[in-house]
Amino acid sequence: MAQVSNHLVIMAGGVGSRFWPMSTVDRPKQFIDILGIGRTLLQLTYERFKGICPPENVWVVTNKKYADIVREQLPDIPQGNILLEPCRRNTAPCIAYVSWHIKAKDPKANIVVTPSDHIVTDTDEFRRIISSCLKFTAETDAIVTLGMNATRPETGYGYIQADLSTASPRNKEIYRIDSFREKPDLQTAKEYISHKNYFWNAGIFIWSVSTIVNAFRIYNPAISKIFESMLDIYGTPEEQAMIDQKYPECENISVDYAIMEKAEEIFVCPADFGWSDLGTWTSLMIQTKHDLYGNTAIGDNIHFYDSHNCIVHTTQEKKVVVQGLDGYIVAEKDNALLVCKLSEEQRIRQFAEEN
Amino acid sequence: MAQVSNHLVIMAGGVGSRFWPMSTVDRPKQFIDILGIGRTLLQLTYERFKGICPPENVWVVTNKKYADIVREQLPDIPQGNILLEPCRRNTAPCIAYVSWHIKAKDPKANIVVTPSDHIVTDTDEFRRIISSCLKFTAETDAIVTLGMNATRPETGYGYIQADLSTASPRNKEIYRIDSFREKPDLQTAKEYISHKNYFWNAGIFIWSVSTIVNAFRIYNPAISKIFESMLDIYGTPEEQAMIDQKYPECENISVDYAIMEKAEEIFVCPADFGWSDLGTWTSLMIQTKHDLYGNTAIGDNIHFYDSHNCIVHTTQEKKVVVQGLDGYIVAEKDNALLVCKLSEEQRIRQFAEEN
Repeated sequence: MAQVSNHLVIMAGGVGSRFWPMSTVDRPKQFIDILGIGRTLLQLTYERFKGICPPENVWVVTNKKYADIVREQLPDIPQGNILLEPCRRNTAPCIAYVSWHIKAKDPKANIVVTPSDHIVTDTDEFRRIISSCLKFTAETDAIVTLGMNATRPETGYGYIQADLSTASPRNKEIYRIDSFREKPDLQTAKEYISHKNYFWNAGIFIWSVSTIVNAFRIYNPAISKIFESMLDIYGTPEEQAMIDQKYPECENISVDYAIMEKAEEIFVCPADFGWSDLGTWTSLMIQTKHDLYGNTAIGDNIHFYDSHNCIVHTTQEKKVVVQGLDGYIVAEKDNALLVCKLSEEQRIRQFAEEN
Repeated sequence: MAQVSNHLVIMAGGVGSRFWPMSTVDRPKQFIDILGIGRTLLQLTYERFKGICPPENVWVVTNKKYADIVREQLPDIPQGNILLEPCRRNTAPCIAYVSWHIKAKDPKANIVVTPSDHIVTDTDEFRRIISSCLKFTAETDAIVTLGMNATRPETGYGYIQADLSTASPRNKEIYRIDSFREKPDLQTAKEYISHKNYFWNAGIFIWSVSTIVNAFRIYNPAISKIFESMLDIYGTPEEQAMIDQKYPECENISVDYAIMEKAEEIFVCPADFGWSDLGTWTSLMIQTKHDLYGNTAIGDNIHFYDSHNCIVHTTQEKKVVVQGLDGYIVAEKDNALLVCKLSEEQRIRQFAEEN
């Protein structure tokens, strides 16, 4: 067995505005202490992988404008490990860029790719699963994705259909994937979860750098050609200028569409470690502590009267009194304040943009 | 007729917490731009009297801790005209103090006394009425109070019962008072306003300095004795130290109880100049502009969706989005935020104090 080392890639370029005003384009969700625990989601993501790989093998791909925030929040990783996209092109170009960059430095790298804005409650189980998958990809050409235990008929996630009859002889908890399914309607989601072989796609991938680079060469030659053309510049002072010039030429496409749905040697590792993508206020409420009346307070000085099923999020030093609300979001940050029914939270993006 | 000059006394020592978090003990309502028009209620009060008396005849009585705020908000009046109470003792001691102080300087002074936290919409009519009353008290020993046109069966105000058959020969719009009535229940209030001779007591008084000092001597000798004992120190550097020592000895009593309800030569001037004491959020809503759905926005960047009959008050630079609320107060200032049903606004004081 060749000597391989593990690398972690954190994708931190998102600009979600569903949590406005808590998250904004200037400081998106991954850079915020969304749970009110003194650590941002990016920092929690980094810490979750401690022991999996050393800081010098941690890579963050983000938008240029977030470079300073990442440096500030992750001071332990080398500055050169923060790769900067000049524009947003979805996950395929992002993963291609960091893969070619890592390959130039460490052709035997074994990689786990993760979003930066999800949470995991059972970190021990998470590390066990990730280590198990990394061991598998170090020995094979497999593309592995994690499949989250689907506990409810969620219509906001894509699903992975596993072939549970095909456990790999090398790893009994990794299975071949039958198909990827797009976000379903409620009826379909209910059908999925009535089976045991449908899992949520969490966007966490494990592969060796040669496997993913080869997959790009086969399934998306256009993107592959762009990064192949810059072989001489990865890790040199010219890299950023070149990337600024070439990156915008990449197709705007997710890695799921570009690679996963087309690839052959593709596997899923079912996992159950208390995961949430924190995609909505409702999902945030599920992950946080409630009082007896179903209220969630994120902030140190929040007081509810005659209120139920509300979530209040504010900066630590703010005193908030909420009286007579049922099922509302109250969120306050810097120069903005939102009061909105939880049932209308899909309109928050619109509120943030319109005004 | 003796040469008299007009003086204005603004009582600015209140600490109302009904408008928390907009108003606080550190900066009560009178020092706040409650209407969002770029002027505090104290400044509006001062401006309302322009032309009635010169700045050197304007007196402000306030608590010691608000001295700097008053100086900052009313830079035109002499510093020596800001009289400082070392503690709160209601309106009778406050009025006695400023009256004895003014009398030492100008024994012929003719005085109008006003709260600092009310509003008046028809300033021309207000000035006409005040001037008319000042002319009356310059020529008589009358104690005059203004009676506000009672437009609804308000249970939050005291009422003045006038004897409308007794218009003064000197001034046809000033009448003798039959009785003062405490804040009534709703049934009684309805009865009052079914008559034409009941008016709201706005706490605005007009009298000559000798009249009010004599009234104190007759009706509250205890308070009178305290201020009479300091005749040598008014206007001297010793005044504040002496007041700090003696003022706390005064009875805690309103001028209505101490003087008005006992005095003989007591008159009311009915008035209709768009007055409000802004005592509640509801009364503030009545005085401010609404949108088509009954919403009041005080602040420059406030946006309502699916909301009705709400009032939002915030600092000018805050962006606020309110969705799906009917009949709520949303108020935000510095380190505090309140969301509360308008119908529960009497509990705001409790919310402010409890937490």
